[in-house]
Amino acid sequence: MSGNTFGKLFTVTTFGESHGPALGAVVDGCPPGLEISEADLQHDLDRRRPGSSRYTTQRREADEVRILSGVFEGVTTGTPIGLMIENTDQRSKDYSKIKDQFRPAHADYTYHHKYGRRDYRGGGRSSARETAMRVAAGAIARKWLAARGVTIRGYMSQLGPIELAFRSWDAVEQNPFFCADPERVPELEAFMDQLRRDQDSVGARISVVAEGLPPGLGEPVFDRLDAELASALMGINAVKGVEVGAGFKSVAQRGSEHRDEMTPEGFLSNNAGGVLGGISTGQPLVAHLALKPTSSITTPGQSIDIHGDPVEVVTKGRHDPCVGIRATPIAEAMMALTLMDHWLRQRAQNGDVQVETPRLRQC
Amino acid sequence: MSGNTFGKLFTVTTFGESHGPALGAVVDGCPPGLEISEADLQHDLDRRRPGSSRYTTQRREADEVRILSGVFEGVTTGTPIGLMIENTDQRSKDYSKIKDQFRPAHADYTYHHKYGRRDYRGGGRSSARETAMRVAAGAIARKWLAARGVTIRGYMSQLGPIELAFRSWDAVEQNPFFCADPERVPELEAFMDQLRRDQDSVGARISVVAEGLPPGLGEPVFDRLDAELASALMGINAVKGVEVGAGFKSVAQRGSEHRDEMTPEGFLSNNAGGVLGGISTGQPLVAHLALKPTSSITTPGQSIDIHGDPVEVVTKGRHDPCVGIRATPIAEAMMALTLMDHWLRQRAQNGDVQVETPRLRQC
Amino acid sequence: MSGNTFGKLFTVTTFGESHGPALGAVVDGCPPGLEISEADLQHDLDRRRPGSSRYTTQRREADEVRILSGVFEGVTTGTPIGLMIENTDQRSKDYSKIKDQFRPAHADYTYHHKYGRRDYRGGGRSSARETAMRVAAGAIARKWLAARGVTIRGYMSQLGPIELAFRSWDAVEQNPFFCADPERVPELEAFMDQLRRDQDSVGARISVVAEGLPPGLGEPVFDRLDAELASALMGINAVKGVEVGAGFKSVAQRGSEHRDEMTPEGFLSNNAGGVLGGISTGQPLVAHLALKPTSSITTPGQSIDIHGDPVEVVTKGRHDPCVGIRATPIAEAMMALTLMDHWLRQRAQNGDVQVETPRLRQC
Amino acid sequence: MSGNTFGKLFTVTTFGESHGPALGAVVDGCPPGLEISEADLQHDLDRRRPGSSRYTTQRREADEVRILSGVFEGVTTGTPIGLMIENTDQRSKDYSKIKDQFRPAHADYTYHHKYGRRDYRGGGRSSARETAMRVAAGAIARKWLAARGVTIRGYMSQLGPIELAFRSWDAVEQNPFFCADPERVPELEAFMDQLRRDQDSVGARISVVAEGLPPGLGEPVFDRLDAELASALMGINAVKGVEVGAGFKSVAQRGSEHRDEMTPEGFLSNNAGGVLGGISTGQPLVAHLALKPTSSITTPGQSIDIHGDPVEVVTKGRHDPCVGIRATPIAEAMMALTLMDHWLRQRAQNGDVQVETPRLRQC
Repeated sequence: MSGNTFGKLFTVTTFGESHGPALGAVVDGCPPGLEISEADLQHDLDRRRPGSSRYTTQRREADEVRILSGVFEGVTTGTPIGLMIENTDQRSKDYSKIKDQFRPAHADYTYHHKYGRRDYRGGGRSSARETAMRVAAGAIARKWLAARGVTIRGYMSQLGPIELAFRSWDAVEQNPFFCADPERVPELEAFMDQLRRDQDSVGARISVVAEGLPPGLGEPVFDRLDAELASALMGINAVKGVEVGAGFKSVAQRGSEHRDEMTPEGFLSNNAGGVLGGISTGQPLVAHLALKPTSSITTPGQSIDIHGDPVEVVTKGRHDPCVGIRATPIAEAMMALTLMDHWLRQRAQNGDVQVETPRLRQC
Repeated sequence: MSGNTFGKLFTVTTFGESHGPALGAVVDGCPPGLEISEADLQHDLDRRRPGSSRYTTQRREADEVRILSGVFEGVTTGTPIGLMIENTDQRSKDYSKIKDQFRPAHADYTYHHKYGRRDYRGGGRSSARETAMRVAAGAIARKWLAARGVTIRGYMSQLGPIELAFRSWDAVEQNPFFCADPERVPELEAFMDQLRRDQDSVGARISVVAEGLPPGLGEPVFDRLDAELASALMGINAVKGVEVGAGFKSVAQRGSEHRDEMTPEGFLSNNAGGVLGGISTGQPLVAHLALKPTSSITTPGQSIDIHGDPVEVVTKGRHDPCVGIRATPIAEAMMALTLMDHWLRQRAQNGDVQVETPRLRQC
Repeated sequence: MSGNTFGKLFTVTTFGESHGPALGAVVDGCPPGLEISEADLQHDLDRRRPGSSRYTTQRREADEVRILSGVFEGVTTGTPIGLMIENTDQRSKDYSKIKDQFRPAHADYTYHHKYGRRDYRGGGRSSARETAMRVAAGAIARKWLAARGVTIRGYMSQLGPIELAFRSWDAVEQNPFFCADPERVPELEAFMDQLRRDQDSVGARISVVAEGLPPGLGEPVFDRLDAELASALMGINAVKGVEVGAGFKSVAQRGSEHRDEMTPEGFLSNNAGGVLGGISTGQPLVAHLALKPTSSITTPGQSIDIHGDPVEVVTKGRHDPCVGIRATPIAEAMMALTLMDHWLRQRAQNGDVQVETPRLRQC
Repeated sequence: MSGNTFGKLFTVTTFGESHGPALGAVVDGCPPGLEISEADLQHDLDRRRPGSSRYTTQRREADEVRILSGVFEGVTTGTPIGLMIENTDQRSKDYSKIKDQFRPAHADYTYHHKYGRRDYRGGGRSSARETAMRVAAGAIARKWLAARGVTIRGYMSQLGPIELAFRSWDAVEQNPFFCADPERVPELEAFMDQLRRDQDSVGARISVVAEGLPPGLGEPVFDRLDAELASALMGINAVKGVEVGAGFKSVAQRGSEHRDEMTPEGFLSNNAGGVLGGISTGQPLVAHLALKPTSSITTPGQSIDIHGDPVEVVTKGRHDPCVGIRATPIAEAMMALTLMDHWLRQRAQNGDVQVETPRLRQC
């Protein structure tokens, strides 16, 4: 495979550049019989859409997705689902200045060295705009999983230096930060306003949780559920770290503390984050991801051009001051794609998945 | 694929259970012309071998690897390389007690629910013993990469609560902890001795670094170098978190701080950890992983059996009090396998890999 | 993978139904630097297009392909190439009669049993219309291979009972049958006219040849060049048999006759068809395929409906009386896709492909 | 993947050279719960074993297979099954003469050009000896399928010029040719004796049939059941052609003749050979394969050496005068592997496979 396909049985292949004619995806392996419509996909796309608050890029994209195949009379047929979003806001712009420069911390330098050429308009293929297709495809997986009792939700657990507790899922959809602690939202707004005045950007930490999973998902020894999830989340633009369950806190824990003891009523804790031996336990699957600060800032930075000569780079244009703000729907989508792929793999090898989860369940 | 194969072009398929007749692997896709012998593999196997210090399990395994195919007259031929290690220390033991119990934080519970049955002797397939084959296969990749100027090394950067600085690579091989700060070794020894008296275990943090890489390795958008590395490292037994470069520290960084500026003489920092846009920059590739504390401890813990009834579990036998201690060679092997796979993928699509790295290099 | 992707390194994933909004494909793994335009693809699409002669279906499709990504300033960038053809001639039609019937020798019966539902309009996904995307993708491979000296051409070697010799490549493009023997064309026309009067259809045999190949393409033991080519050709709608080189004639040959002896000037024959041990020899790669007669004929036939009740089926509409007539460009495309995939695989494992073929070459 | 793995969900990866220490395989993806023993595998291995009659090579190999993993207490556990056969009859021999020669119609020439080196002892990896592992792995698939009512059997349908009818399955196992027409066996014996006197070899045609299949196996559009079967069979050493159902006879058939009409009692014929649209119909799956005559004959032939100089080659040693004679168990194994892989794929996407086949069935 050539890098643009995610999954093994439920596969998503994306294509498209930031400023090309269109973005698209092929979702292959979706079981027949799922009711799905463009509106189902649009809901998640709108949550990720740029320009939806003053804290994100002001690029205006309707992000209207079309289903081109694989759905007949409103229901999936088992054939591949073609998806397309036409790019509408491709402002004509003078790229003559940046086309030969490597913006610091961007993929400009690496695409140039890998391929010998690149579509420099808006980052081309390396733009986070590509993740729109992941969100669209993820919406199909989410709907299929939801019909089996699985809920996937995420929230921002840290914005720059500000750590954010989880209070309620209800709060998450009511602020532009996907913050689960509604009382902290004014603080986040103030922080972002100051950041903009500083002409700088900041990182974020996102947490994603799947509830209602059956035990048994994951294929050891290499295609473990946590390993594939780590790949799925690290593969999101700007992500630099991934944890499952207690994550890096496990390092300082003792075995007597970390191990999740079990009673007939259930697990007594969830340091495992819902995975043991690479296979889901049936407890909530919990992952955290670290996103780096946006590289495109208006504070000048030192760099070089394709000839190796020094240049000073100032990134103009419409950019998110914190790419993490729009990352929650993307992380949810990638977790959904991972889980659906593993669900199908589990039923391939082990017959149908145990939907009645065992007596023992929650922490 | 069914979960036991790593890589796409340079592939490693492992088989074998902890207490079965043998462990084995097939390494497919190795280019012809590489000089390789069993001694090359044995070197890394010995570094990972149990029983090599009093801080690891006392199971005695010679871990002698045989090359069964793919090497002729001391040189690889391009055909698959079969590897085998016979298990020699399979003490006959009474498993009647543990065969129906789920040890807390082990894969017992999940294997049972996934497959309906399991080889309960010593953890069966879920035992870390399986990683011996990864180390053997990794040694092939390391030798191939070394011939191209790439060096892969790791060290322990934290043992339980004790953070450990990097001082020198020379120190790493001279203590049983893979600690890069020789002055701290007595402290680690004292800590481990106390831990054993406490009948408890502890986690660890390992850091791995590849130097001498060309730019251009990694296949966006899903098979990014960092995404595949995250999968490779999270797929090691007991790993709960993976970072690349600044990792979770990126969250609190500002863009002006995180971005690695470039001058004609090179990058000025390496927060990226050697990857931008999922493609290697040519800077050192830096990853960190968190390992949870060993689950097998002699302190009794609550659990249930396969009938759902409560049991008290005490894990006897020969176990590592810190699985992280032997994890360094495994992490190095997985990084080597990841890099070699991507090297071949890069030359498939983009012709031969730029071995003369560009002028701009180090931080 | 879920069945709609061809290739391992140069991959083509198609989507789309006969009467849906569009057909599409994603071509992933194309090396950067190839000049390609929509006109390059259109040339082959036009050769396959329906309605181009009175011997093929009268469905009118412009088959205008759009490149949606992966090409920048007229050159491939190494990112996935999205392709789309909008369906324009979807005559509104009353499907109430056929939607519950299984037309004999069609995929109606099997799609119904596999998926539980199907898009019955014009055969849906099982329509040969899907092969338009293979031809479009194949045109990219052909152009890349042509730049390396490889030519891929096919011709009709039998129409129903009429065996057709190879006379010249020039003739092939000058008649609607892809017949390489121009003197026989009137005979074919008369045969087809009679066939239409008989309200019947007929099979065909197509031969495809690649010239200018280097030795070394093909990955034993399972991904042999001939094995993958067999899959590629058998995977074309209506194909029931595939031969390489002497094919079924090998059965009655003796070893002393079949073996292609070699001299310093070259092979003395080509019974192997250009493949030994699953690897290209550098001789012409020669394959033959058998296509069954079109199933859609106006002569009534017995069948059943989805309730198991007997029905009489008469297939109206616009159908090819011999699907083999339009199969030549499809077979060429599939051979091109197979060869390009293997070329990239060869250079992954064995470094760059020997473009200077060895002294010893042709038969 | 690097060429030595067959299948996507039920995968078989083989390794080993003709004269190396051992042959081996890893069977991954086998569902847990299948009772399997070495004796089950040995049965098919013995049918393929060399030296079992005077019409095959006199190399003496016990071909004793060991199961190294994946089976516990006589039952598969869902983990990978490691298999190994030690090579015992590796007569020490002087290879100095042939090591630089390319034997006509062998893989010597292509392996040399592909890999730059090769294990020349007995053909190395390109020897048909490798197929022993396919037969061993196939035995696992056969047993799993048999438990679901599927029977896979083959017979020789042509030996050189002698066409052989199908009379009864009982006869097949009672003669060394796998001939289904017992009255013709003396004729075959006489033919083979004359062939040996002529110092020549001959081709064969093998037919393989799977009965008891459910409808629904096969993944269009590329991973069709017939396409994957074509690859599986063409991938057997010496195979030059593959047909499904009417095969090349379809070319001269008319649609009114070829189409298999249906009534409520069943199909009226089986020209399709059990596949429509790439998906099984539930009728017997019927395939035919053409094997070329053995290349190793004692009649001298012209060739060249690795320096391009002319040589005369006489192949001494122990060779089958008709490789087709031992091909029947191999072809059965490859059909079994193909079917089992597709069975698992079908249940991944479409839930469990319809084991109660529909009312409509046989021809």
